[in-house]
Amino acid sequence: MSTVPVLIAGQWRPSQSTGTFRVENPATGEQLPGEYPISSWADCDAALTAATEAAAVLRTLPREQIAKFLNRYADRLDARKAELVDLTHAETGLPKAPRLADVELPRTTGQLRQAAAAVLEGSWALPTIDTKINLRSVLGQLGPVVVFGPNNFPYAFSGAAGGDFAAAIAAGNPVIAKGHPLHAGTTRFLANEALEALKETGLPLATVQLVHRIEPATGLRLVSDPRTGGSGFTGSRGAGIKLKNASDAVGKPFYAELSSINPVVFFPGALKERGAKLSEEFAGSATLGGGQFCTNPGLIILFASDDTEKFIADVKTRFEAANPPVLLGKPVVRSLTEGVAALKAAGAQLLTGGAPVAGPACRHANTLFRVTGAEFLAKPHQLQTEMFGTASLLVVVRDLAEAAAVLNQLEGNLTGSLYTDTTGADDAAYTKLEPILRARVGRLLNDKMPTGVAVSPAMNHGGPFPATGHPGFTAVGIPASIRRFAALQCYDNVRAARLPVSLQDKNPNGKMWRLIDGQSSQGNVGG
Amino acid sequence: MSTVPVLIAGQWRPSQSTGTFRVENPATGEQLPGEYPISSWADCDAALTAATEAAAVLRTLPREQIAKFLNRYADRLDARKAELVDLTHAETGLPKAPRLADVELPRTTGQLRQAAAAVLEGSWALPTIDTKINLRSVLGQLGPVVVFGPNNFPYAFSGAAGGDFAAAIAAGNPVIAKGHPLHAGTTRFLANEALEALKETGLPLATVQLVHRIEPATGLRLVSDPRTGGSGFTGSRGAGIKLKNASDAVGKPFYAELSSINPVVFFPGALKERGAKLSEEFAGSATLGGGQFCTNPGLIILFASDDTEKFIADVKTRFEAANPPVLLGKPVVRSLTEGVAALKAAGAQLLTGGAPVAGPACRHANTLFRVTGAEFLAKPHQLQTEMFGTASLLVVVRDLAEAAAVLNQLEGNLTGSLYTDTTGADDAAYTKLEPILRARVGRLLNDKMPTGVAVSPAMNHGGPFPATGHPGFTAVGIPASIRRFAALQCYDNVRAARLPVSLQDKNPNGKMWRLIDGQSSQGNVGG
Repeated sequence: MSTVPVLIAGQWRPSQSTGTFRVENPATGEQLPGEYPISSWADCDAALTAATEAAAVLRTLPREQIAKFLNRYADRLDARKAELVDLTHAETGLPKAPRLADVELPRTTGQLRQAAAAVLEGSWALPTIDTKINLRSVLGQLGPVVVFGPNNFPYAFSGAAGGDFAAAIAAGNPVIAKGHPLHAGTTRFLANEALEALKETGLPLATVQLVHRIEPATGLRLVSDPRTGGSGFTGSRGAGIKLKNASDAVGKPFYAELSSINPVVFFPGALKERGAKLSEEFAGSATLGGGQFCTNPGLIILFASDDTEKFIADVKTRFEAANPPVLLGKPVVRSLTEGVAALKAAGAQLLTGGAPVAGPACRHANTLFRVTGAEFLAKPHQLQTEMFGTASLLVVVRDLAEAAAVLNQLEGNLTGSLYTDTTGADDAAYTKLEPILRARVGRLLNDKMPTGVAVSPAMNHGGPFPATGHPGFTAVGIPASIRRFAALQCYDNVRAARLPVSLQDKNPNGKMWRLIDGQSSQGNVGG
Repeated sequence: MSTVPVLIAGQWRPSQSTGTFRVENPATGEQLPGEYPISSWADCDAALTAATEAAAVLRTLPREQIAKFLNRYADRLDARKAELVDLTHAETGLPKAPRLADVELPRTTGQLRQAAAAVLEGSWALPTIDTKINLRSVLGQLGPVVVFGPNNFPYAFSGAAGGDFAAAIAAGNPVIAKGHPLHAGTTRFLANEALEALKETGLPLATVQLVHRIEPATGLRLVSDPRTGGSGFTGSRGAGIKLKNASDAVGKPFYAELSSINPVVFFPGALKERGAKLSEEFAGSATLGGGQFCTNPGLIILFASDDTEKFIADVKTRFEAANPPVLLGKPVVRSLTEGVAALKAAGAQLLTGGAPVAGPACRHANTLFRVTGAEFLAKPHQLQTEMFGTASLLVVVRDLAEAAAVLNQLEGNLTGSLYTDTTGADDAAYTKLEPILRARVGRLLNDKMPTGVAVSPAMNHGGPFPATGHPGFTAVGIPASIRRFAALQCYDNVRAARLPVSLQDKNPNGKMWRLIDGQSSQGNVGG
């Protein structure tokens, strides 16, 4: 059987590969059809050349055409939902419903459509006009964007269909997708629908390209090539940091989502008031999606008390009652096993789980660890090791001062949650800890678990390093996520006919918000 | 005589120094009063501790108070203008008037006042509210910001008073200023006025701190310390890249302005139409401020013709007629000499100048080089060496294709200018070159020289690497410049009383633009 082709310059063509790989069904261990290539630099080089040409065309197209592509692509995915979901289920073990068919795919097509709407409306680009000196600026094309998709969201974060993809296209850039090897068939399916949508809407066919897998050294070269505008990456901290360093060294934006253990603090009053409800809520969030969410609550801070012991016992029961999920693949089981080993080595007390489940399926027992605040403070670095899967560490602190000390040791995270009671008993404690947590997370929650990332304008799926590489940006939430893949382009004394439409005197659609002489306006220049 | 103190935690106190330095008058070579310390890590460590405490207070203060400080500081500088200008003139050789008193200081106090107005108005932070899911986000405090000021703008880019300073304070951060050793007395004067303004307006006194100079290794530690939120840097490419790498490695924003040669293309029609006017315009821009502007036109592209030969002869005459300016200090003469040597070594033909002027004053002859397009293309890297001073390279290309090839070799720049005629003769050439140049510069100009950076909302004083470290941001122009020094902070299901004022239901001033359920609004949530 011949090797699966790559998508370069509008053609599914044979890869110039350095090797091949197969995809396994993580529920059964069986190999799935298709031998996929590991692309050499030659494939990436050809993709960059084609993307550069596509970029030159894209910047001349009306934004309506880009919006049309995004919408058409979404429609095509909806139309082929059943087929796509079957394929992805076999590759990832994720449930067909509700997860893939009713949650992740609608979310993904919703993102594409929201991006299309933002492109049409146009305010995302912050057009700014100073009439007295004829100075005008707007966020514009960055150049070819490389998007590395992760293992855990085969649609919503896919390099060929997900949030970074939608944002990069919306900003007017071609995308070179690097698929994830654990669901290579899914990404291929997505990229092919994108290609058909490009054909239908008249965009350059190299606007979407796909390589299935590349060697690490090829990745470093790809993100730092002079033709590359920037990159989006969601994945492991180790690989992400190497790519980020290579990109940083040549001053190209690299938006990385790397690592997060999403601390949750249960204050004493909250546990006293509604401990049983909260243990259910926490266990539900921790086991959601097999614990394979970037926002999985991995570090729980509790105050020593009888209520806390009851909460822990209840959570343990729930973790043990829940069937260990099929994980996304062998590498996930391996990485979880390593994370668990790191916590054991750091002296954390194992309450339940702690080992893979034997058998052909990729499973790992639901796992709970426990340490005291003092123990955490003795080894804060090791005890923040991410365990990607259903595994959490409970930190039982002596008092508020110790809780503050623990929070002060935290690295940057995507989220942080504070649970307080409803009568005000926890208010003073909240006031003390909130500033410490606020500075260390992108999204601060009250009385709510972090899983569930709404695609909504106010969302921040970002946070201080190592959650991401820059605390000012979000990977989810339109219009903000689009601005990541744009360059600020100023036009000084440029003649009217040579300006992009968003900066011409006439408001291009009567809806675009522009800052004209310092005032927000949907009007034309000069009234 | 005792060593000049540093400003840490609201006190002018003795530095724990590793050495000392003096400031010289570059016009006379004489040493000026004051022996300044080179701060050890102990000074920086103490400043970071104090800044962290200041940050905790700053985030609780009403924004009116921060605005009051910025305005009061501006007022104080205006009030002491004569004294300040005398001091700076002695340290830098820059003319008292119009440059220091009538241009740079008003610009600087204007920046502080514009920042104050933006703080009061509040829209800069892009507050966003999704009412249905009670999700709210806003750009907020990043943490202590280190600002490294350059040699060439002792006020407008000063770490203790300039654009980065104003932006960082406006975003709610304390600033640790690293002064520039060539005008240490000026920065000390500025920081002291800031301190007095802090006292008058009740801000934490560690909101503004100053070290005069640090060893390179101390700088790397300072920008990457866990307490540091981010940094702003304007200065040399070598030092800046080392600091950027250290900061990038720990995922902290580092806004660097590093290097720019600001290409200018004179199309044939423009030279034919108004060659004499254009040679005057170019020579005026190239010699402005002793050529010591980040936007100095250093690379001029001309099309081989008699008009071009006439232009070059005219420019040469003007460069020779202009008195070589007093440069900012010996290091500037040294670096210019090195830049000139690099161009000589690359085989560029010297038309005039090319050596320092003998005598006690820091001067270098106005310098012009010339190469053909083919020569440029043979050594594009060496021939893009920045020559900081009155020195430019003229590249005479054979035709449009060669011009395009030259532009395709350019690194990222702050600006790029295209001069065309008024009858349309140059339009086709413009259409061909504009996309190439657009992708490589932050500000694209028509028929205008790049010097003169208006502090205006649409300004982009930024550009692709190595002009800066990230093409999405500007160092000049409010409100955009403020957003650099902010973290995106999301509040998910957070109770009303715990929200920052900008995210509460009631619009805090009835003027702040907020994105409420996807719609721009100056109203309250719920009407």
